[in-house]
Amino acid sequence: MAANFELTREYLDQLKDAISNEDSVVTHEMVDDLHPADIAEIYDELNIDEAKFVHLLLEGEKSADVLMELEEDVRERFLEALPGDVIAHKFIEKLDSDDAADVLNELSEEKKSEVLKSIDDTEQAGDIVDLMSYDEDSAGGLMAKELIQVNVNWDLVTCMREMRKQAAEVDEIYYVYVVDDDGILQGTVSLKRMLLVRPNAKIKNIYNNKVISVPTDMPSNDVALIMEKYDLVALPVVDLLGRLLGRITIDDVVDVIKEEAEKDYQMISGISEDVEPSDNVLLLTRARIPWLLIGLAGGILGAQVISRFEGQISEYPQMAMFIPLIAAMGGNVGVQSSSIVVQGLANKSFSLDSTWQKLTKEVSVAFLNAAIFSILIFGYNYFFTTGFALTVMVSISLFTVMMFASVFGAFIPMILNRFKADPAVATGPFITTMNDVLGIVIYMAIGRIIFNALM
Amino acid sequence: MAANFELTREYLDQLKDAISNEDSVVTHEMVDDLHPADIAEIYDELNIDEAKFVHLLLEGEKSADVLMELEEDVRERFLEALPGDVIAHKFIEKLDSDDAADVLNELSEEKKSEVLKSIDDTEQAGDIVDLMSYDEDSAGGLMAKELIQVNVNWDLVTCMREMRKQAAEVDEIYYVYVVDDDGILQGTVSLKRMLLVRPNAKIKNIYNNKVISVPTDMPSNDVALIMEKYDLVALPVVDLLGRLLGRITIDDVVDVIKEEAEKDYQMISGISEDVEPSDNVLLLTRARIPWLLIGLAGGILGAQVISRFEGQISEYPQMAMFIPLIAAMGGNVGVQSSSIVVQGLANKSFSLDSTWQKLTKEVSVAFLNAAIFSILIFGYNYFFTTGFALTVMVSISLFTVMMFASVFGAFIPMILNRFKADPAVATGPFITTMNDVLGIVIYMAIGRIIFNALM
Repeated sequence: MAANFELTREYLDQLKDAISNEDSVVTHEMVDDLHPADIAEIYDELNIDEAKFVHLLLEGEKSADVLMELEEDVRERFLEALPGDVIAHKFIEKLDSDDAADVLNELSEEKKSEVLKSIDDTEQAGDIVDLMSYDEDSAGGLMAKELIQVNVNWDLVTCMREMRKQAAEVDEIYYVYVVDDDGILQGTVSLKRMLLVRPNAKIKNIYNNKVISVPTDMPSNDVALIMEKYDLVALPVVDLLGRLLGRITIDDVVDVIKEEAEKDYQMISGISEDVEPSDNVLLLTRARIPWLLIGLAGGILGAQVISRFEGQISEYPQMAMFIPLIAAMGGNVGVQSSSIVVQGLANKSFSLDSTWQKLTKEVSVAFLNAAIFSILIFGYNYFFTTGFALTVMVSISLFTVMMFASVFGAFIPMILNRFKADPAVATGPFITTMNDVLGIVIYMAIGRIIFNALM
Repeated sequence: MAANFELTREYLDQLKDAISNEDSVVTHEMVDDLHPADIAEIYDELNIDEAKFVHLLLEGEKSADVLMELEEDVRERFLEALPGDVIAHKFIEKLDSDDAADVLNELSEEKKSEVLKSIDDTEQAGDIVDLMSYDEDSAGGLMAKELIQVNVNWDLVTCMREMRKQAAEVDEIYYVYVVDDDGILQGTVSLKRMLLVRPNAKIKNIYNNKVISVPTDMPSNDVALIMEKYDLVALPVVDLLGRLLGRITIDDVVDVIKEEAEKDYQMISGISEDVEPSDNVLLLTRARIPWLLIGLAGGILGAQVISRFEGQISEYPQMAMFIPLIAAMGGNVGVQSSSIVVQGLANKSFSLDSTWQKLTKEVSVAFLNAAIFSILIFGYNYFFTTGFALTVMVSISLFTVMMFASVFGAFIPMILNRFKADPAVATGPFITTMNDVLGIVIYMAIGRIIFNALM
């Protein structure tokens, strides 16, 4: 596997040929050398029978790894069809404890206990059950039990001997954790440090006691922020007494970061499900419906507002001209200020600002933008359209709508966050549509006042 | 440093007190134990003189690390004020080669050469100059020269001795790279494997020859996708002959992933600069202006379109009612389909679909959604508003606008991508505003046809 494998149409045709000829030698040859992640990608392009044919040719560990790389729903379908003891021996026993717990949590209650009872190694089964009890979006849900720990009172020779024993079940080492007699985390020794010191050195003299650890109940977003900020590849998880329970590795945190970013992006783009362009037409259609429904409701509401002012519009049809402008500007400003707040909350970058400071700042920004754009539109209308009343009205409305949408857009996510809801909801359809409708109400109401005053 | 440090108002007040009393003992005590990332965070809350006072108390390595953690613009200001030899000795020489190259690239040409000439270790200076030549958004720009490599013909004892030599300048080891006599990358040996085998083992018998490597010119997004897909913590970079040049570590790639996600998010939310809620009012205002300007231009264009149909509106004022609905639905659908394509392109999840398949699929999804929503609005208008002509007109317009915006929204990012431009631009203000305006044109044009036909 020189560089990375790239799936081509030719490769796929050749593989499908081999499968349809039931040629297990060629098929095995074609996939054996590939990384599990690549094999999982190939499965996406095969039908279920073809994928099964390939899967039965893979050896134990790799077969488990491939299943782990599949999309959750595909894996679920696959596993529900297998008996519990096969899942346990061929799959769960070959996975790291954190992956095993995640997979088991996807199964039905019945299947779950069937699989757990079939695991031969009771210690492993115990570890998995422990992990299954944590919220999947917490440090406990992200951690694996597999790690290397040594006692602070050992010397390097004892330590190396113990590490050889423990290393067999750990995929990657990264750090060796140092604990005291009660299992309380004291620090870490890097493998590099071990390479550089004499074999008779004592752990207590060479370990680094500045170790960052997190409690099991820390939300996974916070875990991600910590690993990112301190550039960590592994992070130990401790209980309330400080005892070492497991470690979180960076690959799991990269997934958290990606998912979080994608969730926020979907919210702001109005997609209600985790879809990809390769999904089928019905799923893609369905994912777009909720936002469009809310948009339609908002549009109908807007239409009703305008219909109350029908007389006004037939008298001054120019009023209709600026309806889209007002609605669009209100919507734009609202999304802008919501999204800055949402990103700020996600990155915890509000630092020490008080609520009062945040409020003052948002109002200042809103005021500046609203002033700039109402002056611009005043200028345009003054020189290029007829009717001073309309000119005044559009400027005042735009100012009001922009001030309102901007402050509203910033405060909804702050309030959602205060009540422990996801602030990104504020960038979603409901709030943006509400902003649109309120923009129209403000425009029409101000229009009535001004026309009554000036005409 | 038990768990992670949290910056509080009390801590900050105490620190500022110590600084204003020029009490270097207390100040040093308060920051000495902290991680460089935390110290950098504290600087954000201090004025420049306070930060300088703290910085002068830090010892060499930490002082360099703190500067590395600062925001780019803050660091630049800081460094431009220092003489070249101070920057070289106190800062550049203490950094990894990739960080050193990044920092030097931020400096003015004059300063750059001044600093480079002052670096004592010519090999280090050479490494840095090598790295500075790569595009910062490529594998070459992400890699560091510091890594541990051993010859495939060595035995473990020689290998360990060499590793001890090399380890001094490498922060974290992760993998030991195996090269042949020509420096061509052959594979890796994990430290874990070294722990588990006998000391007289030969590298050629224990190394893993399945190593994923990337060329120097691979874009950093693709590097991120590879490290993510294969769950790697370090990735070797090779030249065209396959010679090992450096390695990319996961912490740098996490930054790439975050930045990429934030860039896309800013684009879709209409923010033109990388701002945070803690930035000042002018910066926050300025970041919002470009989208709003384009929105204003679009709104004015929309107003002009509507003004051409002024007669029509004063005759049938109900037509104005549905202008916001049509514009909003077109905008929503356009953003939805653009964003799915943008995310699909970013994740390379289009797999093997041909352009024709993508087109067919997008048209099908657009058709389904357009049909559903034009039937819904037809039903609403038929029962709740008066005028059959208006009912027919709104339905047909909505269908046309949704079809158009949806297909347009999907194709713009594909075309941008084909021409090597950032597809995320399609979710930005220009295209969405264009969608709005075209929606209005379609609505008014269809309105004229239908009213002429039916009234």
